Amino acid sequence: MTIPRWTVRSLACFTFSLALTTSRAAPPPPDSAGDFAMVIHGGAGSGDIPPDLVAQRQAAMTKAIQAGYAILERGGAALDAVEAAIRVLEDSGWFDSGRGAYYTKAGVPEMDAAIMDGRTLAAGSVASVQHIANPIHLARLVMEKTPHVLLVGQGAEEFAQSQGIELVSPYYFYTEREWNRFLKAKQAAEKKAPARRDDEHGTVGAVALDRAGNLAAGTSTGGTVLKMPGRVGDSPLIGAGTYANNQSCAVSGTGTGEFYIRNVVASDICARVRYLHVSIEQAADDVVMKELVEQHGDGGVIAMDRQGHIAAPFNTAGMMTATVRSTGPITLKGWNKTAAPVTINVK
Amino acid sequence: MTIPRWTVRSLACFTFSLALTTSRAAPPPPDSAGDFAMVIHGGAGSGDIPPDLVAQRQAAMTKAIQAGYAILERGGAALDAVEAAIRVLEDSGWFDSGRGAYYTKAGVPEMDAAIMDGRTLAAGSVASVQHIANPIHLARLVMEKTPHVLLVGQGAEEFAQSQGIELVSPYYFYTEREWNRFLKAKQAAEKKAPARRDDEHGTVGAVALDRAGNLAAGTSTGGTVLKMPGRVGDSPLIGAGTYANNQSCAVSGTGTGEFYIRNVVASDICARVRYLHVSIEQAADDVVMKELVEQHGDGGVIAMDRQGHIAAPFNTAGMMTATVRSTGPITLKGWNKTAAPVTINVK
Repeated sequence: MTIPRWTVRSLACFTFSLALTTSRAAPPPPDSAGDFAMVIHGGAGSGDIPPDLVAQRQAAMTKAIQAGYAILERGGAALDAVEAAIRVLEDSGWFDSGRGAYYTKAGVPEMDAAIMDGRTLAAGSVASVQHIANPIHLARLVMEKTPHVLLVGQGAEEFAQSQGIELVSPYYFYTEREWNRFLKAKQAAEKKAPARRDDEHGTVGAVALDRAGNLAAGTSTGGTVLKMPGRVGDSPLIGAGTYANNQSCAVSGTGTGEFYIRNVVASDICARVRYLHVSIEQAADDVVMKELVEQHGDGGVIAMDRQGHIAAPFNTAGMMTATVRSTGPITLKGWNKTAAPVTINVK
Repeated sequence: MTIPRWTVRSLACFTFSLALTTSRAAPPPPDSAGDFAMVIHGGAGSGDIPPDLVAQRQAAMTKAIQAGYAILERGGAALDAVEAAIRVLEDSGWFDSGRGAYYTKAGVPEMDAAIMDGRTLAAGSVASVQHIANPIHLARLVMEKTPHVLLVGQGAEEFAQSQGIELVSPYYFYTEREWNRFLKAKQAAEKKAPARRDDEHGTVGAVALDRAGNLAAGTSTGGTVLKMPGRVGDSPLIGAGTYANNQSCAVSGTGTGEFYIRNVVASDICARVRYLHVSIEQAADDVVMKELVEQHGDGGVIAMDRQGHIAAPFNTAGMMTATVRSTGPITLKGWNKTAAPVTINVK
């Protein structure tokens, strides 16, 4: 096995960035400009996913990261790649996001999403929206067309309409799978059976580094099944489930959101990179595999620094990820702890 | 002038805590257990407040911090002191919070609040609620009675009703002052006159350290005048406008919330204390007086560490604060840059 070109180069960059630890400026972009990278996730949770769903999710994640790759390859922005990939996952219906979102106690989805630009710290997010097919796109519009960062509920939907976005019927989000999950969870709650939290995630997210050396992150989710109406998780909260800053890193989280909020997980990982000068791998591991585990907070993250180092720890049985670099190919892994990674050509 | 006993003791503690920098454990509680401290703020903004409003705000802040002091003095929790003080400010009608909240574009208030316990990292918050007299109390109930951290909009109000909290009429929040502010802002917006952002804050918040050495923080706001319906600011977002962690510090922010969200201001200050081992004063100054100023993000914070060190920087013309320690008295300051502090007996 030969050491990939990328790894050698990015290790060199990392050593160089360590030498700059006293500077307040952002670390330099990769020394061989033009490399890019992207990671997406399809949620942390049970590794016990039926084989046909694994196949559907792998196909959707491949299509999603191909969409991001196409943008990054032609010199497009990390922000655009993140939005494009997440839209594919929202539309697929195979994740707890967009068309496949879980239902609240009221039996309909309420969705959250956020996107953040590591270059400018510009961010947009929406929460508790019920009639939006692509919450990640609405989050992008909040970022670009309003003076605000976060819009929720009906206010967010009124803004969507003002931007020409159609409010979709609740039936757009109907699937037999989600209806059955809702009924099953409702029955279990009525019997006060212990919740199986481990299989309650299918949040999607993406982090990317573009040819210009800019980071971006995004996350989109329907939250937890049977959540209280109005409950907002970590995904749309900048710093909790989503964060990007060229000075440190880009992160998208997935798990039981309340733990991610209390621990401000995404920005804590980046703060450790920025202030402790530890690697992204160590920072992500220390937060996900130590702090969260101590608190019984289940989930995982995908994280990337400006040199293209990637970390994707999860403390659940599985967390599906797809990864690609400029040089290809796409690597799919994490749908359970033991399955071997699958490699797919990028085009 | 003699050096106050507290200062000498807390400096000793601080030196001691510096010696522990490599430990992952929380810093030790104050070495002379039993001391406590509290700071509250009434918003950063213009120092150009009419004298009668200054007097009303000073009276309300005195009453609020007395309520907190009474709890801390009898050995009560920082969390209870924070909630009690903020309730007084919400009820007073003299701040952009509770009864005095600013109106959105729709001409009614939408309020946000959060509370966090530094001992357990438990947190609760509400956003975009329209019929809740005391959002800080509802935030506390979200923390204690639900598995969630953040509830928004109608879902939050339904939860309030389930807890026996009455939904108040919109007229509860009517004041001539706010109606006139709304009309004036609306006319200015129609004429596209530049907004005077500097006078648009009156958020309230509190941080406290109790006799047991535990920190807590809370914030409550109506946000910015003429905000878009559904807009959520930094106050209810854990890490942005409110944060407390015994391992580092407690913070409540006030200012143009979007900057606080993008910079995850409250938890960034605490991350600097925890990872860079700088003083709370330096951490708060570096964030509020440097990073925010560079981005033209106006506002301030109150911050306290576990040794009772206090920082209260603001980059606006004024930020009203009241401070008290176990030994009394109450100090009121910051309603403008030049006015001398006022000292009031604590009882």
